[in-house]
Amino acid sequence: MLNSLRVVLVSPRNPLNIGAAARAMSNFGCTRLRLVNPYDVAFREARSAVRAGYILEQAQVFNTVAEAVADCTLVAGTTAVGNRDLHLPLHRLEAAGDVLREHLAAGPAALLFGSEKFGLSNEDMSHCHWLLRIPTRDEHGSMNLGQAVAICLYELRRETKEAARRFTPAPVAMAQDFERLTELLLDVLARSGYVNEKVSRSGELKLRRLIRRLAMPASDVETWLGMLRQILWKIKQPSPD
Amino acid sequence: MLNSLRVVLVSPRNPLNIGAAARAMSNFGCTRLRLVNPYDVAFREARSAVRAGYILEQAQVFNTVAEAVADCTLVAGTTAVGNRDLHLPLHRLEAAGDVLREHLAAGPAALLFGSEKFGLSNEDMSHCHWLLRIPTRDEHGSMNLGQAVAICLYELRRETKEAARRFTPAPVAMAQDFERLTELLLDVLARSGYVNEKVSRSGELKLRRLIRRLAMPASDVETWLGMLRQILWKIKQPSPD
Repeated sequence: MLNSLRVVLVSPRNPLNIGAAARAMSNFGCTRLRLVNPYDVAFREARSAVRAGYILEQAQVFNTVAEAVADCTLVAGTTAVGNRDLHLPLHRLEAAGDVLREHLAAGPAALLFGSEKFGLSNEDMSHCHWLLRIPTRDEHGSMNLGQAVAICLYELRRETKEAARRFTPAPVAMAQDFERLTELLLDVLARSGYVNEKVSRSGELKLRRLIRRLAMPASDVETWLGMLRQILWKIKQPSPD
Repeated sequence: MLNSLRVVLVSPRNPLNIGAAARAMSNFGCTRLRLVNPYDVAFREARSAVRAGYILEQAQVFNTVAEAVADCTLVAGTTAVGNRDLHLPLHRLEAAGDVLREHLAAGPAALLFGSEKFGLSNEDMSHCHWLLRIPTRDEHGSMNLGQAVAICLYELRRETKEAARRFTPAPVAMAQDFERLTELLLDVLARSGYVNEKVSRSGELKLRRLIRRLAMPASDVETWLGMLRQILWKIKQPSPD
């Protein structure tokens, strides 16, 4: 089941943490590690992780979160913050685990971990459908990166009697579909004057989150894209009068 | 509840692991760390663990396992080995967690972790009532010490009541919202030439079903309507040229 999971480390800085994440992945039978903008030296030094070298050899490196999650139909972010206004639904890991397990039976999902120092940025989070939080104390919420990865994988791997009798949901749209929809709609809205032509960064993030909140079936994506392209074409036309 | 738990590290060798164990304990609100025969230098160097210094300051050091668990009414050992003849009952962590949680409500319990290289010895295990195993793969069972401690504490801390950890979905849009969206979008599409101006009945039904398949949060409806109104307004405008 953990074959469908992509563990995505965004801007990791410490080779020991990258290695620890890879080792936990090997322990729990999860092989697909993706790194976004890692500190190069950290990545090279991580390769000595105990019996997890093969995971690090196969790890894929991306420049952006959008590329790293492009083929995933569910993107969940991790955060230590319980009270900040995150603009996204926030679930405890126990509940998120149920949903992730169910999803992984049907299609690929990404689990995002932010850098050791800052966690995920608002920009990173705008690519997520929702966030999860490991139930640590409020007074000391921030976990070590390798330990956080290990706990999430344990939760996904732990035995639950219910998981066996869950139904398989229809495939939903992938992150790259949402990204294309976001770009097209942004263009349409800019040309319509709904947002400034030079759209503000926060406006773009709002729009991305708005679209991520739609649970769109994969089979409808082309239809929506087609509509938007046509609308865009129309808006660009000179008026017949 | 984790106040009643004693985390006992037997012969730990790596200061980073001792520090990581202490940090995870702080994350999950468990303060009583006991060390049996630690490598002295390792223990001193561990004191820099992120925000867990107070746990390391208060840690107690013992010469033998017997002394370290003397005040506990339950002693559970951890092992990565699933098949060796261990002479003791062996439980998966999920099951062990239930028993430990129950016990901790009544009295102190110890959770023993062996050294990084060798795990618990037969002598160490002879002080245990039973053993637990984190459900790792058979092919790579041995976990990093700090990660193993973190996972065990998470299991003890995790919310077990089904009801409490249900995903609470946001209220979704009502039928009348979808209907307004359908009408507006139909108008936009007709004026864009995506569908015939005199739209066919079946086209309208297709569009309605397409929109119904979006699980749109109720709180987003007005935003989408606003966008569509603006796009419609733009399409109706004579061109500035």
